[in-house]
Amino acid sequence: MNKITIIGLNVIGNSIGMALRRANNGSQVVGFDPDRQREDLALRKHLSIDATAPDLQSAVQGAQLVIISTPPSAAREVLATLEPLLDDGTTVTDTLSSKEQVMAWAGELLGSRVSFVGGHPFSQTLDLETASESAAPSADLFKGAPYCIMPSPGAHNHALSQVIQLAEAIGAQPRFMDAREHDSFVAAVSHLPTIASAALLHATTTGPAWLDMSGLAHEQFRNVTEPLSADPTALRDILLSNRAALLRWIDQYLISIQEMRDLLAGDHSEELLTELQDAHEARATWAADEGSGDQAGDKLRAELKQAINDSRPSRNLMGTYLTEQLFRRKEK
Amino acid sequence: MNKITIIGLNVIGNSIGMALRRANNGSQVVGFDPDRQREDLALRKHLSIDATAPDLQSAVQGAQLVIISTPPSAAREVLATLEPLLDDGTTVTDTLSSKEQVMAWAGELLGSRVSFVGGHPFSQTLDLETASESAAPSADLFKGAPYCIMPSPGAHNHALSQVIQLAEAIGAQPRFMDAREHDSFVAAVSHLPTIASAALLHATTTGPAWLDMSGLAHEQFRNVTEPLSADPTALRDILLSNRAALLRWIDQYLISIQEMRDLLAGDHSEELLTELQDAHEARATWAADEGSGDQAGDKLRAELKQAINDSRPSRNLMGTYLTEQLFRRKEK
Repeated sequence: MNKITIIGLNVIGNSIGMALRRANNGSQVVGFDPDRQREDLALRKHLSIDATAPDLQSAVQGAQLVIISTPPSAAREVLATLEPLLDDGTTVTDTLSSKEQVMAWAGELLGSRVSFVGGHPFSQTLDLETASESAAPSADLFKGAPYCIMPSPGAHNHALSQVIQLAEAIGAQPRFMDAREHDSFVAAVSHLPTIASAALLHATTTGPAWLDMSGLAHEQFRNVTEPLSADPTALRDILLSNRAALLRWIDQYLISIQEMRDLLAGDHSEELLTELQDAHEARATWAADEGSGDQAGDKLRAELKQAINDSRPSRNLMGTYLTEQLFRRKEK
Repeated sequence: MNKITIIGLNVIGNSIGMALRRANNGSQVVGFDPDRQREDLALRKHLSIDATAPDLQSAVQGAQLVIISTPPSAAREVLATLEPLLDDGTTVTDTLSSKEQVMAWAGELLGSRVSFVGGHPFSQTLDLETASESAAPSADLFKGAPYCIMPSPGAHNHALSQVIQLAEAIGAQPRFMDAREHDSFVAAVSHLPTIASAALLHATTTGPAWLDMSGLAHEQFRNVTEPLSADPTALRDILLSNRAALLRWIDQYLISIQEMRDLLAGDHSEELLTELQDAHEARATWAADEGSGDQAGDKLRAELKQAINDSRPSRNLMGTYLTEQLFRRKEK
């Protein structure tokens, strides 16, 4: 019987457990959290795990798959603590939203006895990066949403396959990219909006006029500042965990604002309209596509799975990164 | 019997008419729109007016109050056309969201025979600046929302009083400020968010990576780019109509982003947290206050009305601007 261990029983950890247990693929789901109360909640209220363990060692002993679902700040320590406790051949994955850092830690701290495959699940119903402690876990949390998967250079095919199966078991859509690319994407679509939002609040609310003008703020202000309704400590940790990629995007953003400023200052009415039309159309296209699934991706994923099962990699599958991984492993 | 004329039967004009007719204060509401179909809709479907008129001259003849509710681009021409048609002592007001420009036009084009009092109604349910042609008008549109009122230097007390009564009749809360101050406020809380949003779309969606990363965009991206779901032409006109004030706020915004960038680049974790906490708290306070009414303002407004009725201005009422207006008028 398979054993899957979830370390960190927050909303992500609990939801993975609930979805795995509902999928009922014969695995035993063991949960571990330094907070006993959260273990009790997982076991008795959320029914997200089959069992707890007296300590971390027993929690991961005999586990084929260990899922680290802790806050970013705890991940390094957990990896270091885990290393001597893991059986040979264990697959280790995580759920953090920035990947270069955690992949580097895994490379540094985990030996070649185990395979690390980075993971980043998304949700269509909750912003998992900033979800509060009190957010309710759900077996449907990941349904239809992307699940980014990044095997470390030394990871075995079998480990990659396990994490793909995990993503599919919980109803998500596996996507493959490298960690640097992933972090740049997430910086652009999630962390840069947070900076845009925080800077807007900083620019408008810290001056003496705010008291008078706050009463006129409505819809536009509410939407654009929405990201700052999240917990500031969580936001700080997330922004810092993806610092390098985010800085590149902030520079791009500064250029874009300066461009719009120049169009406005020069009264370039036509060019300003073109920019606004392009932005409007890009957003409309995105909003129409969102949640409509990813048929091209589905086909590629099916082919990839077949290739992994056959141990017969194809150069045309998932872009150079993944195929290189597969070749490298085959050539060993 | 009082006659009130609404020029421009868009969602604002129709909603004002519906609210006035519901208030049933004995006025006749006449509507005028160059588009006959919109006049018919107003008369027969929205029931927002009591009557139409064969031409602009008959529409405004004998009117005590003329409300200009056209798009910004038409306002100047309407003012110029109206001037020779108005009876002596008519009060003219408008509903545009940028005020310095239209107040300047009114000063230039309307003689001293009539009183211009600038107005800017808000809504808690609809963004009136970008509301589409198809938005449904409602007698409740302005309920509980601010209604900014800016008398021109030559406006009579009676005219100011009429516009205050209009705002109250439609359920809004009159607020008093000068046009420059108003435009700065609106630039900060409405037009700057639009720029922040458009620049975010420009920075992220115009590069080659967008195709790959768009699938990872979710909540944060959706909220911050929401203002660009509005009609780009309307957005362009609004931004240009408030150019000077908006440019000042964009410069402030660039400084705020640069500050956050520096904190991030320098890994100043504590200072970054403080900025995010301040932004979080400012937003939370604003969100809690929003729609909770304005009791201090209610009291001041009551006193102001009394002072206007008594023609006995008070220095402590509405700040220097309005009391100066009142004194100036009294001293004439």
